[in-house]
Amino acid sequence: MHPVAGFQLGTTSAGIKVAGRKDVVVMKIEQGSTVAGVFTQNRFCAAPVTIAKQHMQQTTPSYFLINTGNANAGTGEQGMADSLSCCQAVADTAKVAPHEVLPYSTGVIGEPLPVDLICHAVPAALDQLSENGWAYAAEGILTTDTRPKGASIQCDINGSPVTITGICKGSGMIKPNMATMLGYVATDAVIDEELLHAALQKANGKSFNRITVDGDTSTNDAVMLVATGSSGVQIDEANFELFLEQLTAIFTELAQSIIRDGEGANKFVTVTVDSAENIKEALAVAYAVAESPLVKTALTASDPNWGRIIMAIGKSGIHFDTNKLSINFGDIKVVENGKIFSNYNESQVATYMKSSSIDISVNLNSGSKYFTAYTMDLTKKYIEINADYRS
Amino acid sequence: MHPVAGFQLGTTSAGIKVAGRKDVVVMKIEQGSTVAGVFTQNRFCAAPVTIAKQHMQQTTPSYFLINTGNANAGTGEQGMADSLSCCQAVADTAKVAPHEVLPYSTGVIGEPLPVDLICHAVPAALDQLSENGWAYAAEGILTTDTRPKGASIQCDINGSPVTITGICKGSGMIKPNMATMLGYVATDAVIDEELLHAALQKANGKSFNRITVDGDTSTNDAVMLVATGSSGVQIDEANFELFLEQLTAIFTELAQSIIRDGEGANKFVTVTVDSAENIKEALAVAYAVAESPLVKTALTASDPNWGRIIMAIGKSGIHFDTNKLSINFGDIKVVENGKIFSNYNESQVATYMKSSSIDISVNLNSGSKYFTAYTMDLTKKYIEINADYRS
Repeated sequence: MHPVAGFQLGTTSAGIKVAGRKDVVVMKIEQGSTVAGVFTQNRFCAAPVTIAKQHMQQTTPSYFLINTGNANAGTGEQGMADSLSCCQAVADTAKVAPHEVLPYSTGVIGEPLPVDLICHAVPAALDQLSENGWAYAAEGILTTDTRPKGASIQCDINGSPVTITGICKGSGMIKPNMATMLGYVATDAVIDEELLHAALQKANGKSFNRITVDGDTSTNDAVMLVATGSSGVQIDEANFELFLEQLTAIFTELAQSIIRDGEGANKFVTVTVDSAENIKEALAVAYAVAESPLVKTALTASDPNWGRIIMAIGKSGIHFDTNKLSINFGDIKVVENGKIFSNYNESQVATYMKSSSIDISVNLNSGSKYFTAYTMDLTKKYIEINADYRS
Repeated sequence: MHPVAGFQLGTTSAGIKVAGRKDVVVMKIEQGSTVAGVFTQNRFCAAPVTIAKQHMQQTTPSYFLINTGNANAGTGEQGMADSLSCCQAVADTAKVAPHEVLPYSTGVIGEPLPVDLICHAVPAALDQLSENGWAYAAEGILTTDTRPKGASIQCDINGSPVTITGICKGSGMIKPNMATMLGYVATDAVIDEELLHAALQKANGKSFNRITVDGDTSTNDAVMLVATGSSGVQIDEANFELFLEQLTAIFTELAQSIIRDGEGANKFVTVTVDSAENIKEALAVAYAVAESPLVKTALTASDPNWGRIIMAIGKSGIHFDTNKLSINFGDIKVVENGKIFSNYNESQVATYMKSSSIDISVNLNSGSKYFTAYTMDLTKKYIEINADYRS
């Protein structure tokens, strides 16, 4: 991963859940950077989310502090105090104000945060700070993930080189709602806070906000976007779309990597809903299909079970003319005018369904809006992971 | 099961999916009866549902015809014609008009109905008609269910005996929305159509409409309520509540039997949401908890994972004061004022969670409305059943 000048990462092990596991990460943001963030919409957002949002309102942050193994969620006022203590530990060692530090926690919900372990590990994490720290940090933020997730490009914006690099984590309890699991993306472009936030919202809307593992929304989601400005390349309204395109590519790669590593996943599934009357309906249909346990178990079995797909579309609550509906699996037409395609060839479709990557396209033929959701199949492994792991 | 005078059932085997399996049931309704029905709200309702509703508008039905093994859903105009042909077969043999016959189908979606097999079996089913035919019929309407489901009482309405007997089927693709899987309930009370429909709506609202196996809504749901009037006991506004109470008890027993036989279920789970501002919010929270894969897999593991419950409540989209929330598992207080109960005893709760029947009570402390949903845990067996069975 390409380093981003002005953004450093340091990773260490505090022994929160497993001795020796990398579980504490600090990120240092050079003065003069701009920062934007989106956070979970879960009503029970965790203490660190509340504090990160408060601190963001006070000043531009100079440090992020992330711990895994404990989400500090459902912990009431003690959780708020604990999260602040961790910020204070960074502030003390790094000689900054505590509200310049944004805290992030991920892991088990409802247990007290092991403040002492984290605070004790902070100096070691700060010692490790380096612009080349991305790979270790990508490991340091994982929980049930089976592999680190990162994406990076050096692109050309109006003839000048710009770097965008990011990491994220997430594998279960994934249905981001205006946010996601943890994601940290930095760029060396120069971009003011307002435009940076707009870029984050748009890229996020096309990436993290389109994935679902299990329809469950975490209490601790956050995606942060930092622009250090070190490249000197100014992003303004003239080149915003160019930059956004590159940023969205990185965001999409990161978001899709969460699905590819989704708990128990064997298949990567893209559900596209086309020609809807409006976005809300396209979204309702896409998620009804993407989250149906019966659709997901049919995918597990590589079964071209279009009956379960029409069931899911039918339960989505939207009004449309069922006689106009068509469904494709990949390029293969399966349903046309609301019923099975006249030349439907089950053996051809059955072969396609064995792929590790499946495209389900639903065409409502009732408008011009579309939405794409990314999901996975539902396997016994998902049950195993979640009946064993205390999240 | 107590017979209901004026209501006969006949069951036979047409060999639709498995040779020798009981898969065709006819029910004969004595002239002078009243009949009410509720049907799936799935936009892709099956051909027999459309036809049953049309026939209901034309006249009071005298026959129900049910087949399993094929849902005749997603079958377009051919499906409509096929369903009508089956009605015609009953009409021909029984010498009634075809619109006096209501068709019901359940089984695989999207395959053509084997009309010949069904029509050929109709005379044998009619031959079997008997007021004592309930038990065979309860078997004859099953698909992935592991056992027949029936409930029956003889009760006392103002000193006069009234019988209510019913059967139902359902095990997966269960989240009834104003209807349910297939349910047939008959009573010998005298009750006019308007009052009968009101009774059905109310009893259904408190029973079938409160269960969820997997949040997936069938294309073929229907519940029928027949009042033959043979007891001579008149139900009117004065004794309606008395009758409704008995009817609701039967409906609830039937609905709960679907959850107890839910695909792969090991635990029967009751989720009660209390003190909500309104019913809509109580319902949103109850289903967010009852349908969360992470809550359901925690139940599978007998894990008192209240963190996942607050996650599910938090994602339900309702606004409430998280600091007022309390959660009980059975009689054991787990969360109070939005955080873990001060005297929380994990080992006591862990013992409770091993029960085969679990009560989760959520108190929002923000109003006076409540809602109860019934569900089950999510096990590897569910995956197995649905990755193997083509529904």
